[in-house]
Amino acid sequence: MIEGMNSMTVAAYAAPAPKAPLVKTTITRRALGAHDILIDIKYAGICHSDIHTVQGDWGDRVYPIVPGHEIAGVVAAVGSEVTRYAVGDRVGVGCFVDSCRTCDNCRAGLQQYCTGETGMIGTYAATGRDGEQTQGGYSTHVVVDEEYVLRIPDSIPLDTAAPLLCAGVTLYSPLAHWQAGPGRKVAIVGLGGLGHLGVRIADAMGAEVTVLSQSLRKKEDGLRLGADHYRATSDPATFEELAGTFDLIVNTVSADLDLDAYLGLLRPGGTMVQLGGPEKPLAVSPFALITHRKSLAGSMIGGIPETQETLDFCAEHGIAAEVEVIEAARVNEAYERVLAGDVRFRFVIDTATI
Amino acid sequence: MIEGMNSMTVAAYAAPAPKAPLVKTTITRRALGAHDILIDIKYAGICHSDIHTVQGDWGDRVYPIVPGHEIAGVVAAVGSEVTRYAVGDRVGVGCFVDSCRTCDNCRAGLQQYCTGETGMIGTYAATGRDGEQTQGGYSTHVVVDEEYVLRIPDSIPLDTAAPLLCAGVTLYSPLAHWQAGPGRKVAIVGLGGLGHLGVRIADAMGAEVTVLSQSLRKKEDGLRLGADHYRATSDPATFEELAGTFDLIVNTVSADLDLDAYLGLLRPGGTMVQLGGPEKPLAVSPFALITHRKSLAGSMIGGIPETQETLDFCAEHGIAAEVEVIEAARVNEAYERVLAGDVRFRFVIDTATI
Repeated sequence: MIEGMNSMTVAAYAAPAPKAPLVKTTITRRALGAHDILIDIKYAGICHSDIHTVQGDWGDRVYPIVPGHEIAGVVAAVGSEVTRYAVGDRVGVGCFVDSCRTCDNCRAGLQQYCTGETGMIGTYAATGRDGEQTQGGYSTHVVVDEEYVLRIPDSIPLDTAAPLLCAGVTLYSPLAHWQAGPGRKVAIVGLGGLGHLGVRIADAMGAEVTVLSQSLRKKEDGLRLGADHYRATSDPATFEELAGTFDLIVNTVSADLDLDAYLGLLRPGGTMVQLGGPEKPLAVSPFALITHRKSLAGSMIGGIPETQETLDFCAEHGIAAEVEVIEAARVNEAYERVLAGDVRFRFVIDTATI
Repeated sequence: MIEGMNSMTVAAYAAPAPKAPLVKTTITRRALGAHDILIDIKYAGICHSDIHTVQGDWGDRVYPIVPGHEIAGVVAAVGSEVTRYAVGDRVGVGCFVDSCRTCDNCRAGLQQYCTGETGMIGTYAATGRDGEQTQGGYSTHVVVDEEYVLRIPDSIPLDTAAPLLCAGVTLYSPLAHWQAGPGRKVAIVGLGGLGHLGVRIADAMGAEVTVLSQSLRKKEDGLRLGADHYRATSDPATFEELAGTFDLIVNTVSADLDLDAYLGLLRPGGTMVQLGGPEKPLAVSPFALITHRKSLAGSMIGGIPETQETLDFCAEHGIAAEVEVIEAARVNEAYERVLAGDVRFRFVIDTATI
């Protein structure tokens, strides 16, 4: 399958058109450049945004699309000038595979907020520097510049490491930026693929963690994962009793929420961070922000240094995702179960089955 | 008029009912308590929120209401245990005259965000500790606990000092909190009573200041006040050319704005602070926040220490409000001119004319 340093044809699962089921196919990976790494993909996580993208929810795309930006594998070959990695290293790739490298944000290691001409170049459904469309991790191999490759610590199994590359850093970044830690009360809204890692990371950072979930259905899971409290948002008493409580609320839910009610749960000076993108605009009363200097903020994944920090932090604290490993042929069924909220807590494709 | 230490009857201008013109009347000021100060009011600024309150825009109130929370005057008498002020001192009172004094915020000097049972007790249209409705500064005298009285530095004339007690600290607080200073690009939206002080204060803090105003009508004023740039928001080129520019945008305008467009002017990591309260909810696209870790925040006046800091900072930097001093009998005409945006930049009532 691997044809030395030349471009290569590899197996993958791709969406052939918007809303069409994913099908097995082959795609071409570019010839190994001097700074490139060929990764033998072992596992690829299924992120809700994979589904949004292939279904066209976030705008028109060019098909076929191979999704997958939670990639864990092993280095199979390195380009002539690669210095950071060697064949056999355990590595990962997250949501982007390149960026302009020269803007202030790229130089500060915040590649996810690249403001250069290229912007952040997504791991799939984006246009790479070579002009070709990038294709993601539901595949057996991928070629990525070493600057955009992460090292997976030995203590984290590759299947449970994969979701850390997107879901993990998506939670780690705002929790670190808005200083979750001892003496701070943090709420995680939603206990799904993102939320379950948020609970673990915030708990490991030393914060007092509350899960805010629609029902108490996953309460046992939440407490086992490290939450100190678990409250149902369908119960109006939650909003009365927890008013003015939290320093930080991290909202992993993409559904429309009554943001004023959630902002009412913040302490003066507190911040609510939005990670997902509901279709409708966010609506907030100005007084919900003004009267106690509150903030509504957004955050998106993390840069390369922060993604490495996430992996190292998770290794240090024994954190990994809880996953259900599936055969590639079950990807469409998995998509339906993600949309139904029926997964604890992340599907990961075993790419050996592609 | 002053009847020693007993309660006293004083002249004032009051709104007798919602949307009714203000009329001259008399009100009762409480007997001087041990920690109270009797202030001989010299000037009272007219704040847009005076108009909102008396017109009932912000909820039902008990009438009559004497507005006015930008009070500058001289100490006329002190209670038996007052230690901070003496007769003859130049003093001011801002938007509140009491608070719970025991909550975390009060103890941190953030009385404006008091979360105690009383909450922040407004200078007018609120219920004081004695159970009586508070009445504001469009009056000849007021009695206030010394802990809620500010010292006006000698170098600031009392008429131009009055607006610093609300408008001044309303801008100083977010500019200080979100670190306007050298190397930071700050936009002030709107050049009215709030905005003109925002320009002066941000400029004195060392920031590069841009005014964003509907038209270029007040451009000369803006540049004279210390703005480095002045751009019209009615010109679409403004939003293209300044995209991704500002670290901080302070919005002094209460009208509905296209917040996504303004958020687009922020640098990654930047913050837009809302000071006014439009009637409709604020609407923002989640992606306007998420894609570059931006924040939409609110801020409300400042606590007692920060209000004193505002006055001292303004004295140090030669900053005061630009005012049009009026006779009390012209207050209704002034309200109409405020609503029409026809004031440079703040009306101040000469209370000797009441």
